[in-house]
Amino acid sequence: MTDEIVVIEGDGIGREVVPAAVDVLESLDLDFEFVAAEAGDATRDATGEALPDETYDLVADADATLFGAAGETAADVILPLREAVDSFVNVRPAKAFPGVDALRPETDVVFLRENTEGVYSGHEDRLSEDLSTLTRVVTSSASRELAEYACDFVKEGRGPAGNPDEGFTIAHKANVMRETDGRFRDEVAAVADERDVEADEELMDAFATKLPLDPGQYGVIVCPNLAGDVLSDLAAGLVGGLGLLPSANVGHDNGLFEPVHGTAPDIAGEGVANPTAAVLSAAMLLEYLGHVEEGQRVRDAVEGVLSDGPRTGDLGGSATTDEVTAAIADRL
Amino acid sequence: MTDEIVVIEGDGIGREVVPAAVDVLESLDLDFEFVAAEAGDATRDATGEALPDETYDLVADADATLFGAAGETAADVILPLREAVDSFVNVRPAKAFPGVDALRPETDVVFLRENTEGVYSGHEDRLSEDLSTLTRVVTSSASRELAEYACDFVKEGRGPAGNPDEGFTIAHKANVMRETDGRFRDEVAAVADERDVEADEELMDAFATKLPLDPGQYGVIVCPNLAGDVLSDLAAGLVGGLGLLPSANVGHDNGLFEPVHGTAPDIAGEGVANPTAAVLSAAMLLEYLGHVEEGQRVRDAVEGVLSDGPRTGDLGGSATTDEVTAAIADRL
Ligand SMILES: CC(C)[C@H](C(=O)O)[C@@H](O)C(=O)O
Ligand SMILES: CC(C)[C@H](C(=O)O)[C@@H](O)C(=O)O
Repeated sequence: MTDEIVVIEGDGIGREVVPAAVDVLESLDLDFEFVAAEAGDATRDATGEALPDETYDLVADADATLFGAAGETAADVILPLREAVDSFVNVRPAKAFPGVDALRPETDVVFLRENTEGVYSGHEDRLSEDLSTLTRVVTSSASRELAEYACDFVKEGRGPAGNPDEGFTIAHKANVMRETDGRFRDEVAAVADERDVEADEELMDAFATKLPLDPGQYGVIVCPNLAGDVLSDLAAGLVGGLGLLPSANVGHDNGLFEPVHGTAPDIAGEGVANPTAAVLSAAMLLEYLGHVEEGQRVRDAVEGVLSDGPRTGDLGGSATTDEVTAAIADRL
Repeated sequence: MTDEIVVIEGDGIGREVVPAAVDVLESLDLDFEFVAAEAGDATRDATGEALPDETYDLVADADATLFGAAGETAADVILPLREAVDSFVNVRPAKAFPGVDALRPETDVVFLRENTEGVYSGHEDRLSEDLSTLTRVVTSSASRELAEYACDFVKEGRGPAGNPDEGFTIAHKANVMRETDGRFRDEVAAVADERDVEADEELMDAFATKLPLDPGQYGVIVCPNLAGDVLSDLAAGLVGGLGLLPSANVGHDNGLFEPVHGTAPDIAGEGVANPTAAVLSAAMLLEYLGHVEEGQRVRDAVEGVLSDGPRTGDLGGSATTDEVTAAIADRL
């Protein structure tokens, strides 16, 4: 059965790294149909809309989407697209790669970030000249769905290699947000208990202190939406930056896969962007569609190139995007 | 004129480090009257209330309060006490001290955290069996008051030594919380502009990546309440932990000064806790009350002891709390 993959390059280096990732996917000889779609700043400038309905519909109807990056319209593009694929969890691995400069090379964690609610539910009001409010939403149903995913994730050994089947850590701020994060924490812990998975917990502020001090003590971290946003970006800082990190917005029968990095306007258009994060996002897409073995092959090829292949400028080399992509494809 | 200082030891090592800080204050021969008050887990166990009304009233009526730490009742104690002193800003310096192991020794930043609203406004509702909400509040008045303080702070050269009068960075999440954090960002930026202070801005997630990668680029950071909580704790991880960091909850004519660390139950009662954070909090109290020169003398004494004096176990030494305190007092 042909899988339909929507491909959205977006802006900046998205236009360079997404084609690279598609090249890698094509070299695998799987039965994929790629459908190009538009979104981002350039699309807004050309059409008046950062995310045209046509793109939204294509993404909603696809089997999976590979997305690059968007500039100042990022939130206008990515938040609705997460909804389009009905994504309930954002999977964000952060690990240091051998041979890549990292503040904390022993970091190897995966964030499972709630992807539908919290402060992202988008209910804001200007109640007076002086005062605005935002309604933060937490439901038991979303918390439990995330927790079920997290339990499967660790039981299937998909957590960091160093921490197989070791349970997860719930990061939250339930000492202040007692009703909302309290609900989140209690529901996630209850599901873990039902599923016989070990779950410990950490206040998100304490976690922000402890992760840089000793990242080796953490494996899978389950958290509300904004906590996951900030804490996973913190982990990115420990492994050397956003440049190499992929992410998956996982839905029930659809998914959106995107590098964590942005449009990198300083180097966009020069053909020297590092395609690693986009290619690793493609590996997550492969695994999501059931091509687990191919996903692993792509990962291995990427890691091989990172450790002794050509390097782009961000890693101190002088190779082009194409050269790195060809080196990855060569190893497949 | 005698200043009345309320002293709340609280729980755990609060009972050891607060007396140490009071010793240091007493050795200065200033006109202080110390009034002891109770709060925390032990108080709750004894009286049924973590924060007795009597303590709240004493704090509200004092010139300043020195607080240690509270255990599981921390939020029940510290949040009302911040209100009692009418605190609109939480000042949190994070710098690495010479001779102390730090992941990023070049870190020297001060967070100015909004201290009254955001998700801390405490409006939570259980709207159904499945769904809870929290109403996050942002006002122009609180944002502007914080911004005025921040402008004075940098203009008076109270920012990190390496960054005199260099303006500040606004850390926020206005790309998602457009109305609330948008209001915060816009108001803070407008005040900076009126006051002729340079203000740049950073999304809080991007800031969490960039701070570990390159802390030297930041000086004073102005942020909403929870952002300040998490990002300042992240900075603590870069300078070696919470152990040495003081903080000030500054109000209009009152203030509450507290080490950032907790009760450290593992070492409580043994007389080996590091008094540095409490003593530095006392230095912030001195400066707040106008004893700027004495505050600086205390700081210098602490730094002297940190670099070549006796050390407690957390810094690899074997000195007791009393020995370190005596060494600090000796240098005054
Ligand atoms: C662009 C922005 C809306 C988005 C988010 O906050 O989720 C980004 O920071 C991310 O983490 O993918
Ligand atoms: C104890 C808790 C309520 C408090 C906070 O969140 O402000 C603490 O983390 C702090 O930073 O002082």
